[in-house]
Amino acid sequence: MKKKTAHAQDITRLIKPQVRKLAAYHIDETPCRIKLDAMENPFPLPKALARETANAIKTTLINRYPDPSAKKLKQSICRMWGMKPENTILGNGSDELIQMIVLAFGGPVVTPSPSFAMYSITAKALSQEVITVPLNEDFSLDADTLLREASKSKAKVIFLACPNNPTGNRFSDPALRTVLDNARAAVVIDEAYFSFSGKSHLRLLNKYPNMIILRTLSKIGLAGLRIGSLTASSGIIEELNKIRLPYNINSLSQVAAAIALEHRDILDQQISLLISERKKLYNALSQLKNISVYPSETNFILFRTSADATIIYQKLKTAGILIKNLNRPGPLKNCLRVTIGTPPENKEFVAVLMKIMDQSKQR
Amino acid sequence: MKKKTAHAQDITRLIKPQVRKLAAYHIDETPCRIKLDAMENPFPLPKALARETANAIKTTLINRYPDPSAKKLKQSICRMWGMKPENTILGNGSDELIQMIVLAFGGPVVTPSPSFAMYSITAKALSQEVITVPLNEDFSLDADTLLREASKSKAKVIFLACPNNPTGNRFSDPALRTVLDNARAAVVIDEAYFSFSGKSHLRLLNKYPNMIILRTLSKIGLAGLRIGSLTASSGIIEELNKIRLPYNINSLSQVAAAIALEHRDILDQQISLLISERKKLYNALSQLKNISVYPSETNFILFRTSADATIIYQKLKTAGILIKNLNRPGPLKNCLRVTIGTPPENKEFVAVLMKIMDQSKQR
Repeated sequence: MKKKTAHAQDITRLIKPQVRKLAAYHIDETPCRIKLDAMENPFPLPKALARETANAIKTTLINRYPDPSAKKLKQSICRMWGMKPENTILGNGSDELIQMIVLAFGGPVVTPSPSFAMYSITAKALSQEVITVPLNEDFSLDADTLLREASKSKAKVIFLACPNNPTGNRFSDPALRTVLDNARAAVVIDEAYFSFSGKSHLRLLNKYPNMIILRTLSKIGLAGLRIGSLTASSGIIEELNKIRLPYNINSLSQVAAAIALEHRDILDQQISLLISERKKLYNALSQLKNISVYPSETNFILFRTSADATIIYQKLKTAGILIKNLNRPGPLKNCLRVTIGTPPENKEFVAVLMKIMDQSKQR
Repeated sequence: MKKKTAHAQDITRLIKPQVRKLAAYHIDETPCRIKLDAMENPFPLPKALARETANAIKTTLINRYPDPSAKKLKQSICRMWGMKPENTILGNGSDELIQMIVLAFGGPVVTPSPSFAMYSITAKALSQEVITVPLNEDFSLDADTLLREASKSKAKVIFLACPNNPTGNRFSDPALRTVLDNARAAVVIDEAYFSFSGKSHLRLLNKYPNMIILRTLSKIGLAGLRIGSLTASSGIIEELNKIRLPYNINSLSQVAAAIALEHRDILDQQISLLISERKKLYNALSQLKNISVYPSETNFILFRTSADATIIYQKLKTAGILIKNLNRPGPLKNCLRVTIGTPPENKEFVAVLMKIMDQSKQR
């Protein structure tokens, strides 16, 4: 056999071209005094609960592999949300579940635009074609166009975030039913924000065996634990379990999440407070000139500025407030997204934003 | 558009045929008094260290997303093992890193047989062809046949566990160099057990840009945390980072692992003890009649029984001792694998095994 060492320039050429042409997912890690960019629950665990968690972790045998099916945690989650454990699998965040779905069904993948970026990013990283279908101008779902594109491309998966990120609205029941009734693909309803809308589509699972529901503990206060859940018909669960990495949920997250869910009342109170803060923040933003605010059923608010949103975003950052800059040509032109924070954080955000808007008006 | 609801039998047909024909990975969850099946470090964290971990976790903000690049933990791991953080990424266990490699390079995937099952399982779950190349009778690597098969199939990835699981031996340097010198594929050297062999191939990374080194914290006492590491040339790291899920390492594992590694002396002492226990266990097994024992550079020992190994495995299980049954036609016929446990566990395992072997002789 002839000697020939692979060279640096060769080796990346061994990598799939679909991967090579991707850009890495960028996360803004600017340390900021007030962090309102990532749809986190701004309230840390109360001290007593943090202590209880720490105590349980003290006796967790981390020298052993985790429970591969995370039985106890899965039961807690299913009890909380009225799902069946045998129809549910947990993921290392919803991200891993999105990946599993695309791995099992393949592509093309169809998703509205704008929507949660990880649907496209994940599908592309898995070398699958992604077809995005524009939402209507009011960010409602154009079910007919979506179905037409799905049918034309022989799509295998349709991802619908409901409520939708980053727009904050929920798609109408008739639009969703139209998709579910007609799609010859797996239809994923991502209910990451359902705790803030109160509207669940779970009971449709009985009618639609091609429907998959995603949820997450990330938005209700446990983002650091990386726990997502997927519920679907047993046929789908069986296939996804073949792809699931056997020990995908580490022991500490299993323990900590189960304890937090035993104190669901605390999380529920935080959610209620955030919902009432959302209303206040919406009203405050609505009163600002040169801003239009979109209604939200989530823990964030999308708004559009008449001035250059990127400049406003930068000025907020300079003032120590990090939100998400969505400004790019198209439907999100001059759009910014702010996560609902604690009452003082929201107050300060409005005050600083008002000041920034006033300054830009004067110039 | 014509109405046509997808039916249960249809929907699994939407799933990729390569996935449908897979079987789910089976994990033996029999609760046993003595667990020697999974290459875990049998020693829990000392109480003081468990307390320190719990204290750190008490102040970890689990309402926030984790550090996406797990900087602090990555630095600890790299310092411990002499790797560069910029050439290293962490995974939710090595399992996730194996998955990332196959996603980035694609297939076919070549790996010796017998070897770690997850290489084939993962590649198949990702719809990639797997070519297994038999090890020689003494479980040494047949580098020429491996290279021929890799070349013939235009393989993209070669997985070599070194030391190898479940055989326990390390492949010779010349055999590995032959593969590295000639392969036109990514060559993954999985050093999961390197702490028990003391032999690292890290410094070869400078010479071979197509080489990838995997390591894990699972075998040295932190299996529950799910932390694997991958080190390779910057070109490969850049591409793999495009595929890595942005928050793949949860906050609690990041904190707990970093603290454990600050007390590396404790883990090192446990490893030394396990190595000396391995020698004792090897000697004890060697003295049993109707058993042949294979030398090990890992934290487990492979042995072959002249009687039906499955019956012996079952009898051990009935006696409360769980090991791994590898008995199937082929090179592992009548083979069993026992993980090195605590001194009393190993003693009891030998005593019970001796009794079982005596009984089967008498019949």
